[in-house]
Amino acid sequence: METVNILIEALPYIKKFHKKKIMIKYGGHAMIDSEAMSSTARDTVLLKYVGMKPMVVHGGGPEISRSMNKLGKEPKFIGGLRITDQETMDIVKMVLVGKINTDIVSQVCLHGGKGVGISGKDNHLIKARKRAPQIIVDNTTGEEKTIDLGLVGEIENVNPEIVEMLTSNEYIPIISPIGVDDSSNTLNLNADTVAGDIAAEVDAEKLIILTDVPGILEDPKDPETLIKKVNIDEIKELIDKGIVTDGMIPKVETCINAIDNGVKSTHIIDGRIKHSVLLEIFTKKGIGTMITR
Amino acid sequence: METVNILIEALPYIKKFHKKKIMIKYGGHAMIDSEAMSSTARDTVLLKYVGMKPMVVHGGGPEISRSMNKLGKEPKFIGGLRITDQETMDIVKMVLVGKINTDIVSQVCLHGGKGVGISGKDNHLIKARKRAPQIIVDNTTGEEKTIDLGLVGEIENVNPEIVEMLTSNEYIPIISPIGVDDSSNTLNLNADTVAGDIAAEVDAEKLIILTDVPGILEDPKDPETLIKKVNIDEIKELIDKGIVTDGMIPKVETCINAIDNGVKSTHIIDGRIKHSVLLEIFTKKGIGTMITR
Amino acid sequence: METVNILIEALPYIKKFHKKKIMIKYGGHAMIDSEAMSSTARDTVLLKYVGMKPMVVHGGGPEISRSMNKLGKEPKFIGGLRITDQETMDIVKMVLVGKINTDIVSQVCLHGGKGVGISGKDNHLIKARKRAPQIIVDNTTGEEKTIDLGLVGEIENVNPEIVEMLTSNEYIPIISPIGVDDSSNTLNLNADTVAGDIAAEVDAEKLIILTDVPGILEDPKDPETLIKKVNIDEIKELIDKGIVTDGMIPKVETCINAIDNGVKSTHIIDGRIKHSVLLEIFTKKGIGTMITR
Amino acid sequence: METVNILIEALPYIKKFHKKKIMIKYGGHAMIDSEAMSSTARDTVLLKYVGMKPMVVHGGGPEISRSMNKLGKEPKFIGGLRITDQETMDIVKMVLVGKINTDIVSQVCLHGGKGVGISGKDNHLIKARKRAPQIIVDNTTGEEKTIDLGLVGEIENVNPEIVEMLTSNEYIPIISPIGVDDSSNTLNLNADTVAGDIAAEVDAEKLIILTDVPGILEDPKDPETLIKKVNIDEIKELIDKGIVTDGMIPKVETCINAIDNGVKSTHIIDGRIKHSVLLEIFTKKGIGTMITR
Amino acid sequence: METVNILIEALPYIKKFHKKKIMIKYGGHAMIDSEAMSSTARDTVLLKYVGMKPMVVHGGGPEISRSMNKLGKEPKFIGGLRITDQETMDIVKMVLVGKINTDIVSQVCLHGGKGVGISGKDNHLIKARKRAPQIIVDNTTGEEKTIDLGLVGEIENVNPEIVEMLTSNEYIPIISPIGVDDSSNTLNLNADTVAGDIAAEVDAEKLIILTDVPGILEDPKDPETLIKKVNIDEIKELIDKGIVTDGMIPKVETCINAIDNGVKSTHIIDGRIKHSVLLEIFTKKGIGTMITR
Amino acid sequence: METVNILIEALPYIKKFHKKKIMIKYGGHAMIDSEAMSSTARDTVLLKYVGMKPMVVHGGGPEISRSMNKLGKEPKFIGGLRITDQETMDIVKMVLVGKINTDIVSQVCLHGGKGVGISGKDNHLIKARKRAPQIIVDNTTGEEKTIDLGLVGEIENVNPEIVEMLTSNEYIPIISPIGVDDSSNTLNLNADTVAGDIAAEVDAEKLIILTDVPGILEDPKDPETLIKKVNIDEIKELIDKGIVTDGMIPKVETCINAIDNGVKSTHIIDGRIKHSVLLEIFTKKGIGTMITR
Repeated sequence: METVNILIEALPYIKKFHKKKIMIKYGGHAMIDSEAMSSTARDTVLLKYVGMKPMVVHGGGPEISRSMNKLGKEPKFIGGLRITDQETMDIVKMVLVGKINTDIVSQVCLHGGKGVGISGKDNHLIKARKRAPQIIVDNTTGEEKTIDLGLVGEIENVNPEIVEMLTSNEYIPIISPIGVDDSSNTLNLNADTVAGDIAAEVDAEKLIILTDVPGILEDPKDPETLIKKVNIDEIKELIDKGIVTDGMIPKVETCINAIDNGVKSTHIIDGRIKHSVLLEIFTKKGIGTMITR
Repeated sequence: METVNILIEALPYIKKFHKKKIMIKYGGHAMIDSEAMSSTARDTVLLKYVGMKPMVVHGGGPEISRSMNKLGKEPKFIGGLRITDQETMDIVKMVLVGKINTDIVSQVCLHGGKGVGISGKDNHLIKARKRAPQIIVDNTTGEEKTIDLGLVGEIENVNPEIVEMLTSNEYIPIISPIGVDDSSNTLNLNADTVAGDIAAEVDAEKLIILTDVPGILEDPKDPETLIKKVNIDEIKELIDKGIVTDGMIPKVETCINAIDNGVKSTHIIDGRIKHSVLLEIFTKKGIGTMITR
Repeated sequence: METVNILIEALPYIKKFHKKKIMIKYGGHAMIDSEAMSSTARDTVLLKYVGMKPMVVHGGGPEISRSMNKLGKEPKFIGGLRITDQETMDIVKMVLVGKINTDIVSQVCLHGGKGVGISGKDNHLIKARKRAPQIIVDNTTGEEKTIDLGLVGEIENVNPEIVEMLTSNEYIPIISPIGVDDSSNTLNLNADTVAGDIAAEVDAEKLIILTDVPGILEDPKDPETLIKKVNIDEIKELIDKGIVTDGMIPKVETCINAIDNGVKSTHIIDGRIKHSVLLEIFTKKGIGTMITR
Repeated sequence: METVNILIEALPYIKKFHKKKIMIKYGGHAMIDSEAMSSTARDTVLLKYVGMKPMVVHGGGPEISRSMNKLGKEPKFIGGLRITDQETMDIVKMVLVGKINTDIVSQVCLHGGKGVGISGKDNHLIKARKRAPQIIVDNTTGEEKTIDLGLVGEIENVNPEIVEMLTSNEYIPIISPIGVDDSSNTLNLNADTVAGDIAAEVDAEKLIILTDVPGILEDPKDPETLIKKVNIDEIKELIDKGIVTDGMIPKVETCINAIDNGVKSTHIIDGRIKHSVLLEIFTKKGIGTMITR
Repeated sequence: METVNILIEALPYIKKFHKKKIMIKYGGHAMIDSEAMSSTARDTVLLKYVGMKPMVVHGGGPEISRSMNKLGKEPKFIGGLRITDQETMDIVKMVLVGKINTDIVSQVCLHGGKGVGISGKDNHLIKARKRAPQIIVDNTTGEEKTIDLGLVGEIENVNPEIVEMLTSNEYIPIISPIGVDDSSNTLNLNADTVAGDIAAEVDAEKLIILTDVPGILEDPKDPETLIKKVNIDEIKELIDKGIVTDGMIPKVETCINAIDNGVKSTHIIDGRIKHSVLLEIFTKKGIGTMITR
Repeated sequence: METVNILIEALPYIKKFHKKKIMIKYGGHAMIDSEAMSSTARDTVLLKYVGMKPMVVHGGGPEISRSMNKLGKEPKFIGGLRITDQETMDIVKMVLVGKINTDIVSQVCLHGGKGVGISGKDNHLIKARKRAPQIIVDNTTGEEKTIDLGLVGEIENVNPEIVEMLTSNEYIPIISPIGVDDSSNTLNLNADTVAGDIAAEVDAEKLIILTDVPGILEDPKDPETLIKKVNIDEIKELIDKGIVTDGMIPKVETCINAIDNGVKSTHIIDGRIKHSVLLEIFTKKGIGTMITR
């Protein structure tokens, strides 16, 4: 009986998001092991079957570093960005496209979804350019050093044709966050940004970012201070006030940017909680932070 | 959390019946008052939103008799069939098409479904012919009497074009059980039969008949003896053995006939239980009797 | 031979209105008995077969009053509007949707048209709101009385999706003039207005209103003074001068409104004359009054 | 009023042939001057506007001979077939395609039809082969002479793609009766046969051949002996009995062949009578001879 | 090996003009005999097979004059325009539509193209009006004489529907340069202008005019002075300076006009050189003069 | 000029294979370095632009072994089959899908093709089952040993939906030869077999296998003994006679199987020769061995 009552309760949400595109950024615990991955994938497939059009972009940082270590190559970062020489880029591609992406596709197909793995290179989905070198100030000497990040890119434009073809034919695209520049070089991209930019380009209804925190907290140490809903102006203020900090800032900026480009709502939620995507979509109070216009 | 677990549990059923046509025969308590109707309609709309193609045929006997009484006209039956003169037929049409059908459409639309009311007359959906007169034997004298039933029909053929157009354009057709003969007379039809014949003609996956009993019972007085699942051969035996009796026989024959013509499964369920349609579709054990090939 | 000459004479009109939508308001003598109805319906079907897209809205006042009388309920009107309590509304629906509409569908299908009966409730074709109460001044005392009209509505907006689907699939929609408000109440609507508003919303070429007068007469008592053609400015003047009066005013206003919203021409014609619709469309001089921009 | 009564009388025929393909072979008086052509073309366009799909094949023998005479070239015939050397073939093409076809297109377009002139060469609509040489017996000497007919062809197969594209896009194809052989030579073809073979290949409902006689007459001298309707078996008997003779035999054989290949009915009618096509289609008794299965 | 290297070299051009419409004006030596025609047609078909959408407009002046002479009628010209009485117009149609057009269709189909011959009359592709009479000044007396050109037209507008239907269904339209006026008269048109106006109306990428000169020459006597590429402003200057003269001026004006109306590039090339169309399209330096914005 | 002559010579092949699917198995030298890959990819794109529908399956054995070595893992083979434990499978996936596939996609897109990388896992394109363990006989002792190959599969069935969607939308699918079993395990597959089975399932015209030998040689040491064309019966005889041996046998069996399942012709060609694919398709004599029915 419960089963049915709950379906009835979910109906308004099912109706509201009927045929809408939902971009989900997989990351952190939501893909930490095959069980977590299976659960996340099943939730994604469920969205498809109740009438939405889910799309996935995945990250993969820790796995890349692990693979590099295995190959005796030390991962290096500047300001959170991985310094990516050609050999590193090969490892990035192999891990993202060859391992993580195919694993997600496995899980999505296993649960009955028509999963298809693509990357930003397919049909030039994501055109990117190399990022400018980072300038680092030596704390001791005050000297500036310019460090080339190598094959790290920023998005120039998204050509959503292939994503549109897939979603309109009932497929669930699983997208690896790499791009291609004018000389056909592969560039390493930030997965959150990729999710946000594609979401905007395909007129997605929602961008949902799975993280390993409860959402945006007034006091980062107290999960009770979770902000459930916030609009763009308020969130900018929270950044100014220093309440949104560190690693959360780029995620929030991705959200702001997505909303500015037409995405209706963006969500930063806790991927450690099982079925967090469904809880966020199908319950009135949600479980993370929703940012809207 | 429960909400979501239950959605996950429903997923296999949602997948299994994705894009399948589900014919629901409304009758009895499921439409006894506006609250019951609202609930039944909402369940129907939910099926649509999770990807199925529901269709509705409704009955209306008690309401017709009530209206006849108001107009000072006495309802008469022979062998369960309403003797239908032209004046009665006018009342039948007015009640079925003008009242009950529009009420269901109201409820379906209110819950977000694209309900459209039609009858067997629209684009000659149901061609019928007059039933042969009934022969009655006087118990006392043993004399036979031939009684003309008037405008009572039996189905000749179903032209499903309009139903197909509606379901393939995301509408939910609500169908009144009247038909039209070669001379354009309107004929009164049995609603169960109409539901079954249309279900077969449009290749429906399921025919679900809402009744005021728990299903088929081994012992009609003991609801504990409910038969959950039975195949055609077994059910025929149950008829032969006299376990299926009276008013249940035509319903069961409708089911047998529907299955013989391609419907995958038929269900006789208890419309007095809230959300019985959903319980039957979305739970493993169901709540009524399922008849299959 | 004649047959053919006349077809040839009709050709320019057939060409001119090829694939155009023609909204016909059935009313008065044109639907007074089954013979008249049959003739009107056949004319409508002919328009379909020579390449136009006819649509029908029907009235039904007298029949409603007759049914009310049968049920011992006295019809009451204020300023031409029927005071409609819930019980009256039920009768209105039963008569319009259950009786008159199905009768027209019968005739249209009998003559080979793909007739489908719908009402303003189907897929919320017509959203309406309750009309404001009428204020009546007592002639004797000069006192004002406010009278609630009950379930009498005015149109808020038309959602023409279902009408478009039907006409583009070669069906002839037959529409009952009731609407639905935000709370899913059924409201009684003026049939002329319904015809005009739907005609405008679907970009009809023509709105033809069947009445029981020859058209607009300079002198209401002299049919010889029929005005054959008049534009909007002229007709407004005729209203100002008091030449258009009484029951004709709302019809003329419907026409003006339809033209303002894009209908190319509107026609008030005499439904008592056989084949008046065809005579108006297929002959140079027509038989009624044509109002154009 | 008459206008309208006659439209109503035509309705059953309009319905019966709705969306059906009608092949009309233009010949003789029906295209003798621009007035006759105009009338024939207008009738053809009318068929289009009342919902049929007319197609035209035209002849042109007399005009070809006239042009040859102008150019000082004597027309020669063997057994009714024009001996066609290359120079004659050029004249045939110029007259059929360049003059007669464009004149018909003019008239069809003038009356509002979307006329398009094509020939059997376009997209290899008609593949043909050279006819075998004719063997002539000298009546005096009894000697046999073999005469090569030159570029006279018989149809090998019809590739109806272009005709189907035109009719399904609302165009009226006007077809010149020439074909092309494997070496890309143009061959002169019998127009009746072309009409019949294309009619069969596109599943036409009717083949109508315009001639300069009333139809098939029991007594060729007495128009009163016109045979209105005859089936294939009967017509074969009439040939055997010598009632169908001479120039009528190939036309009748074309009809028999068309019916054997699926055309529903074929008509040999009098093109000298104005609107003969319409009279044959829209009146119960027709004006010529109808041959059916 | 060469074969393949050259295909590889052609690839950039094949890509650049993929699915683009290419209008080719056939004239002069390119259609002087059947061998030349065959070669020109094969080139055209090749464009189709490597993914472009070629269209052809053909001229035919010399052939028309030859036919007139054969018929004992003297061709007369005023300012390069053929004085065209009704009899001449008949010859024009017969030669253009009946002979030249069908010959081109033959060759195109022989090489595997889906050639279809049409003229400006089909479905009123080209609406034209009679040109104003020419005013001639007698050199001796200085008197002005007004000379009616007869059925010589100038284009009013192009209705490209039929050309669009043909090209989008993989056909190659072959178009004869005649038009039709409001009274359905056939008018003789300049073929270059027809090619240019249709090219503009269908958004062609290129207009290629085949002539009997190398292109635009700085010094008409020295083929070494060929101008390979020129823009609109420069070409206007060349006209002003008197470098573009005589017969070349209308061709250049056609090009300017086509570019002003959206054609991307126009080409005046030497039809005497075999495969000139391909050389112009598939080689970097081309062989004639390209005029661009 | 040459350019153009050669295009003209290629025309018959372009026509013959218009819109046909061409499956190319990339392997060996054709993908040995980025220059070779670029050339192979450009040839593939050229096929697309001249109207065919190319598809690619790639191998990757040497690269996989190199990666294993880098990771300190020794590649092991039994009867030519790589023993594949889970760790090896991860490397296989990373190299095939993450590196080789993305590199091919890069090159195809760089040359203007709409390349999309997929694997046999996407939408369950290739369902496979684990191969039976291999039985090895110890040459010395004569003992049999059963060796489990691990995650090595054989194809059960191909679900070509995604390949069909891609080719019909102008994409070039690049396919990695891995499959998925019922438990969602990834299995390592033979790339030739994958190419052959998909070719058959999508009704490909041709299967072209790029190898590092000239084709099938009568005398493996003498390239002069190349067999240009052979049919299925003859090739079977060649196997029986021991002329086709070793590594060539599975390739030939793939070809035989593909032809038995509807592929029109199969080609074993020398990928060391530049543009070998084009030479095989666009020249009369080809460069490798063609096997046909």
